[in-house]
Amino acid sequence: MKANLRNARALAMALRAAVARSSTVRVAATLDGGEGWRIGPRTLPPPAGASEPLRKILTDMPAPSALLAPTTMAAWKAFIALGDAAKIELGDAFIKEHNLKVAEERMSGVRVFRVTPPRIAPEHAHRLFVHVHGGGFIVGNGRAALPEALQIAESLKIPALTIDYRMPPDHPAPASMDDVVAVWRELVEAHSPATIILGGTSAGATLTLVATLRMKELGLALPAALFVGTPAADLAKRGDARFINDGIDHTLVSWDDVKAAIALYVGDKSYDDPHISPIFGDFTGFPPTYLISGTRDLLLSDVVRTHRKLRRAGVEADLNVYEGVAHADYSQLANTPECAEHYAELNAFVSRHLAR
Amino acid sequence: MKANLRNARALAMALRAAVARSSTVRVAATLDGGEGWRIGPRTLPPPAGASEPLRKILTDMPAPSALLAPTTMAAWKAFIALGDAAKIELGDAFIKEHNLKVAEERMSGVRVFRVTPPRIAPEHAHRLFVHVHGGGFIVGNGRAALPEALQIAESLKIPALTIDYRMPPDHPAPASMDDVVAVWRELVEAHSPATIILGGTSAGATLTLVATLRMKELGLALPAALFVGTPAADLAKRGDARFINDGIDHTLVSWDDVKAAIALYVGDKSYDDPHISPIFGDFTGFPPTYLISGTRDLLLSDVVRTHRKLRRAGVEADLNVYEGVAHADYSQLANTPECAEHYAELNAFVSRHLAR
Repeated sequence: MKANLRNARALAMALRAAVARSSTVRVAATLDGGEGWRIGPRTLPPPAGASEPLRKILTDMPAPSALLAPTTMAAWKAFIALGDAAKIELGDAFIKEHNLKVAEERMSGVRVFRVTPPRIAPEHAHRLFVHVHGGGFIVGNGRAALPEALQIAESLKIPALTIDYRMPPDHPAPASMDDVVAVWRELVEAHSPATIILGGTSAGATLTLVATLRMKELGLALPAALFVGTPAADLAKRGDARFINDGIDHTLVSWDDVKAAIALYVGDKSYDDPHISPIFGDFTGFPPTYLISGTRDLLLSDVVRTHRKLRRAGVEADLNVYEGVAHADYSQLANTPECAEHYAELNAFVSRHLAR
Repeated sequence: MKANLRNARALAMALRAAVARSSTVRVAATLDGGEGWRIGPRTLPPPAGASEPLRKILTDMPAPSALLAPTTMAAWKAFIALGDAAKIELGDAFIKEHNLKVAEERMSGVRVFRVTPPRIAPEHAHRLFVHVHGGGFIVGNGRAALPEALQIAESLKIPALTIDYRMPPDHPAPASMDDVVAVWRELVEAHSPATIILGGTSAGATLTLVATLRMKELGLALPAALFVGTPAADLAKRGDARFINDGIDHTLVSWDDVKAAIALYVGDKSYDDPHISPIFGDFTGFPPTYLISGTRDLLLSDVVRTHRKLRRAGVEADLNVYEGVAHADYSQLANTPECAEHYAELNAFVSRHLAR
């Protein structure tokens, strides 16, 4: 390694010397006092390799700017209520448009919603997609848990169930994880785990990973497969993409703006606790896992770190990274070809790994 | 899509309004006259999720700064000669250290080097790794083609062969592609293509893709598998990572510095020609393909665009993205765990897809 690197540097220096007379020097970045590399400003055009509809959305969109983070508990509750209201409106419109059935139940004391699409694919008739909603660990209460579960049920033509797990500010970690595991315990009494995939997006993907770690510790049967969509696998501000894609990801914008919500969730736990940041957990024995991210995702590093750690543990893990896609775009930009491609891939993954 | 986006924007505006009194505004970026988003400067720390040795290398390394590009033909020839000399020195040291055998041959008039490691894995005894070297389409002449082929032969314990294809300034495209295809034609007279993987890194990966497109057009048998390591799949300055990772990739630094060499190679061809930019080709019927990139790779978008286009064509394609890794680091930083992990994955891929 050292010989190679010395060699590469010697080559770079020799090249500089050789061509110095015929060129001008451009310095893109300078070292910044040992804390890291200082990287200069740049202009980011719409992604040429994205689909036409996604490129159009990003061309018309102003550059991302930071959201305002609440600083009082009253402001947090208003923030969460607004987020929940928007998600409920979105879900209700989707239910009406696609004619899905939603039934509320309780499992192990936790509220869940069963989602039935108007048509179920014959191969999925006895399968179940157990969905863990996102929303930054704080948004998605009650029926606000539904939108992605509805999309999944409708796109894959599969019965789904989403878990209305407890969240901050009233219930910090590990309440959310405990609720997912509690539902799982009751579920597998009636359903064979070989017919179930567990998963979700963003915080839902984080909770999928930590709940699976917890199931392993408890000696429970694991799902046949996992869907891990752009998880925060490390809840601290760590990983290249947190810095590289700061101000580029139009969904999350900046970890500095997200971390107040994360702190509500983490409470007095350590950011290095595998039940908080699953990247520090042991993935040995995990089921086959489908991962998705994009080139503008603030959590791209979390996704690729999770993918590699799964592979190193011998787990079948399928990494999908989309050009021009920010955090959770594949779900929230529902009519883009990227969204359709994601659900086709996810459907094929379910078909490959779940028993009928 | 529109309803969702309006909804997301309405939520963002409502959230701003709801919490405005308790917060301060931070604007990360502003729209820049319709050409794209203006993204501000940032500090990039060493990647926390990379291996300790890679993190140490990146911590000790100054921030990337641009190389000097030659502007005269004499300067280009000096540049290429220096690059070739460095690669030959690297290869010779590796041969000596690991005791490999290298034999020169000609196939269809093209010089090739056969590489035999001191120990061949029994399962690879009748297999062959046909290597296409990188070097920006200009460097890697003669024995300078060898370094990555030596690494592959030694790491996988597999017989390898690397192609000393013609390059600019004397031989612009499509000479390089034609030479790879010419060697392939003669090779498959003696070897079953089911026992051969074709591939390489950077320009070598680009040429792997365009040569495979050309083989398809000519109705030739295709290799059993492809290794496509961080290709320039689009030779124009297109794709998110060309902009996002500008000044972050310590190997290539900036496409603006690379494009003069690319122009020598492209000559009078179009950048949209699939024999130049393989992303515009039809990948239907391609063999299973292993792809690798990293979060600091200037060509990350090329890799993920290629991966998705392969998948859309129904090809088995395995995407591997490493945290903290710049263009071709997995090969040039030979003693890092990332390099070892890459070769273990590539070996498993060869074992899965090649006949014995």
